[in-house]
Amino acid sequence: MATSQKPDTLSQRRPLSFWGWGYADESLRPDEEASLRTLAGGLASSDGLEEVAPPDIEEMTLAAPRIEAPGSLREIVSASPYDRLVHTYGKSYPDSIRMLLREANAAPDVVAFPKCEQDVVDVLDWAAGANAAVVPFGGGSSVCGGVEPDVGDGYAASISLDTQYLGRVREIDHASRAALIEAGAFGPELEAQLRPHGLTLRHFPQSFEFSTLGGWIATRSGGHYASVYTHIDDFVEATRSVTPRGVLETRRLPGSGAGPSADRMMLGSEGTLGVITEAWMRLQHRPTHRASASVHFGSMNDAKEAVRALSQSGLFPTNCRLLDPAEVALNRVGDGQSPTVVLGFESADHPLGAWIERALELVADHGGAWDAEAVARSLAPAGEAGTAEHRQGAAGAWRDAFLRMPYWRNLTNRLGLVLDTFESAIPWSGFDAFYDGVRERVGRTITELTGQPGFVSCRFTHVYPDGPAPYFTFVALGSGNGDLRSALSRWREIKVAANEAVVSLGGTITHHHAVGRDHRTGYEGQTSAIFREALRGAKHAVDPGGILNPGVLIDPAGRDVGAGGAVHPRS
Amino acid sequence: MATSQKPDTLSQRRPLSFWGWGYADESLRPDEEASLRTLAGGLASSDGLEEVAPPDIEEMTLAAPRIEAPGSLREIVSASPYDRLVHTYGKSYPDSIRMLLREANAAPDVVAFPKCEQDVVDVLDWAAGANAAVVPFGGGSSVCGGVEPDVGDGYAASISLDTQYLGRVREIDHASRAALIEAGAFGPELEAQLRPHGLTLRHFPQSFEFSTLGGWIATRSGGHYASVYTHIDDFVEATRSVTPRGVLETRRLPGSGAGPSADRMMLGSEGTLGVITEAWMRLQHRPTHRASASVHFGSMNDAKEAVRALSQSGLFPTNCRLLDPAEVALNRVGDGQSPTVVLGFESADHPLGAWIERALELVADHGGAWDAEAVARSLAPAGEAGTAEHRQGAAGAWRDAFLRMPYWRNLTNRLGLVLDTFESAIPWSGFDAFYDGVRERVGRTITELTGQPGFVSCRFTHVYPDGPAPYFTFVALGSGNGDLRSALSRWREIKVAANEAVVSLGGTITHHHAVGRDHRTGYEGQTSAIFREALRGAKHAVDPGGILNPGVLIDPAGRDVGAGGAVHPRS
Repeated sequence: MATSQKPDTLSQRRPLSFWGWGYADESLRPDEEASLRTLAGGLASSDGLEEVAPPDIEEMTLAAPRIEAPGSLREIVSASPYDRLVHTYGKSYPDSIRMLLREANAAPDVVAFPKCEQDVVDVLDWAAGANAAVVPFGGGSSVCGGVEPDVGDGYAASISLDTQYLGRVREIDHASRAALIEAGAFGPELEAQLRPHGLTLRHFPQSFEFSTLGGWIATRSGGHYASVYTHIDDFVEATRSVTPRGVLETRRLPGSGAGPSADRMMLGSEGTLGVITEAWMRLQHRPTHRASASVHFGSMNDAKEAVRALSQSGLFPTNCRLLDPAEVALNRVGDGQSPTVVLGFESADHPLGAWIERALELVADHGGAWDAEAVARSLAPAGEAGTAEHRQGAAGAWRDAFLRMPYWRNLTNRLGLVLDTFESAIPWSGFDAFYDGVRERVGRTITELTGQPGFVSCRFTHVYPDGPAPYFTFVALGSGNGDLRSALSRWREIKVAANEAVVSLGGTITHHHAVGRDHRTGYEGQTSAIFREALRGAKHAVDPGGILNPGVLIDPAGRDVGAGGAVHPRS
Repeated sequence: MATSQKPDTLSQRRPLSFWGWGYADESLRPDEEASLRTLAGGLASSDGLEEVAPPDIEEMTLAAPRIEAPGSLREIVSASPYDRLVHTYGKSYPDSIRMLLREANAAPDVVAFPKCEQDVVDVLDWAAGANAAVVPFGGGSSVCGGVEPDVGDGYAASISLDTQYLGRVREIDHASRAALIEAGAFGPELEAQLRPHGLTLRHFPQSFEFSTLGGWIATRSGGHYASVYTHIDDFVEATRSVTPRGVLETRRLPGSGAGPSADRMMLGSEGTLGVITEAWMRLQHRPTHRASASVHFGSMNDAKEAVRALSQSGLFPTNCRLLDPAEVALNRVGDGQSPTVVLGFESADHPLGAWIERALELVADHGGAWDAEAVARSLAPAGEAGTAEHRQGAAGAWRDAFLRMPYWRNLTNRLGLVLDTFESAIPWSGFDAFYDGVRERVGRTITELTGQPGFVSCRFTHVYPDGPAPYFTFVALGSGNGDLRSALSRWREIKVAANEAVVSLGGTITHHHAVGRDHRTGYEGQTSAIFREALRGAKHAVDPGGILNPGVLIDPAGRDVGAGGAVHPRS
């Protein structure tokens, strides 16, 4: 495959798969591949499954770029096929399928790789003058059409703006446990620069390896941890962004009551208000104490009530993940069927015996059962048995699956499986009807489309005192005969049903995957038109030309861009 | 005095002092009065102090109202002198002085008392049609000119909109621990409705008795507690606001990543974007376990380092208030001179032995000393010794002073003392220079004005992992001879010096007192012009006529209102 050679690119990164998750040369382990083929085979008809080959760059048809960089920017602007293809889509199911269908209609005309903030300013100036749309691009791990330059006919061209060269930790404030970090820093890169100082941002989304600080802020990313400080929102001390009208910088403050928070306006702005170039981030010391337990329950309701009690206890567990029976089966946790809560505490300051003891009293009140010896081992000092325990058992199995899962789809997509996830949040009082209703509607849609029972599983990724953040995974057979166009059409019907169910049953269209293009209908269903007008007013003030990521989240004032993308295709 | 009789009013509340803090018929205790006269006498020259008499309503000159309510609104709109005077100022030092000077130039023309949301809509419609400014008014406890209708000549009239009739807890969601509360509910009213359910909002600002939920949200109020969930921001689950363009409602969600948070836009909007009519608020169970300690230190630096360690420990103390030597002296805590940290834990779920034990290890690392027996007593079950201990000792003394202090100023203002407070927040790394610099500059200004050493004390009201929120109190002699105009002029010079010091030394102009009119210069110093443009753009979308609280926070688009108020007088 052409992708195994070093492609023509201005990127400094190890070559990426332009059609699927991760690095171009990364493969599935044999055990992963066997297990996925079994899963797919179980859904297929007796004819078996046809496997679609990954695309080569040479197979992709790209229109000639409609714009050329001025001389001063030529060294940081690429029109190479690899660069354009890597920046054509994010990493959602339909993104991969469209690449497997050899479709890259909305590829950016060019990709800009700014090396400094002034380059960002210059690119925006150039774009504004040329009526070109600018799509800020961090790691490109969006699963909602957030980085797809499908901006319609109102723009002369589209420019993807890749921040990967802005990756330094520029300053560390030890006393305040904070660091000034450039927005293009990827997860591992950022942690590697903090580790020698004994510090960590401790923000570990599933996309960790393939997403950036700026992307996390722009999309209100959710971290790995279950409670209290976990959303990136709470770690942002200050931000600096380039808008078409100038630089928007906020002051480093631990707290403030001076007007509406400007950081909170940039958080979730998804590239529509400015290009985030750096941020002061609140850090933590690396944990040295741990305690954990895998708790099994007799029913989903008992497990949910236990988690509710934990969420309202003020104990602030770092892990408090409920896996429902389908999720337990999918991830082969415990006995493979009992609802399970993976419970954990971490601290850089104190042993956690009292914390886990009280947490286990709470889960016992709801009939939870656990292995007391494993809990005792988990309390051993870090670096010894504690860490080992932490890496093994249910928590370890789950962690492994969590990080590898995006790669699995590189195979399941090619086999015609429609495997996707969506997530929400809902008050505790609405959870039961939400959980039942979402699974019923999505499952029914799958059955109507495929004639087979739909697989829909659920886990909690985060829990708040007033409600959980449920995360759903669904699996359906596309057609199995290599007809990915029919698979994509099935995905679209399931996705629309999921969007509709989540919002009509009182949830949010997204807890941490952002709105992008794919969730716009749901976003409009759950927000007041008057707020979206306010947001449009704010955008117009900083981006009067409406060039920043048009179609994502909202339309710019005076432009009817529409969402485009995978759920709302233009043609 | 006329104020002791029931005034002519549409208010349902016990009559308020229109010139000072609190109820019109509330007096200082004899011990309070004696102690304040001693304080004032110590600053005065040998001539003693002249005491200015409180004003009667009849002494106040009010211009005739320039606007009359339409028939449909006549029953909820008042033009009585009492109602207009109560809504003329907030409760800052210069607000009281201007009343003692018998000046109420910017009194609202009328006061509207909506009984339901539709009334709010109707008042805004009426105002928009009449080019009248509308100043939303909760409890009127603003100390930054946030409710003063000093809107300049560009408006035909001003209407103060008092939300006191919107005071009900409308719905309680026990499972999610949340309640739908009307925005006009005062602290005690709101807690009284939650108490039978074993629930509490647990938000206790100093103004608790004289401020409302809507006011807390509009000004990003800070509660009584020291760490983790304390700012009102974190308790807001959803809001509903009336804007001139329609209703802006957000969805009840425990967490969301769907675009920038609309609630966070309303938080801190200070009445410029809409009138908040109700909110779903996150509640807590009433605490049943407590632990506390008063810890004394050998130096301010030791105390500060101990608090920094506590703030970064993940123990989340509910109290962690550092009082500096001047603050200890002012509040007569402990030996009256050692820097003291009032440390406390509260929980509705679990005994707090392990928590306070570890906290005391941390303070011991920094040389802190405490009474071990008092700590042991504080751990006794609530309702018995624990609560008793909690109400006594340093914590109790401090609490008493905290709640009474605003009343003290009703006397000190009349005696010509310039006694005021201001607060900020700053990263730990900047604290030492900030603490020294603010005290030096404010103290020097007082000395230059009065020829006497300036009293400036500091405590931490809140602590975050990345920095504290220092709260300063200053005292200076006005002139002592009853010349309040000269006292006001001295206050203005000290206030300008304080504003300038706080912002130039890296802090925020306000941590929880809001911006209003008095902090506008500082606000503009610490925010990017481009963000204020974005905010103006958002405002223009929801309030195209620019009628909502003009001059507070920002100017409406196309109107040059200016701040007005006490620091920036128009004449």
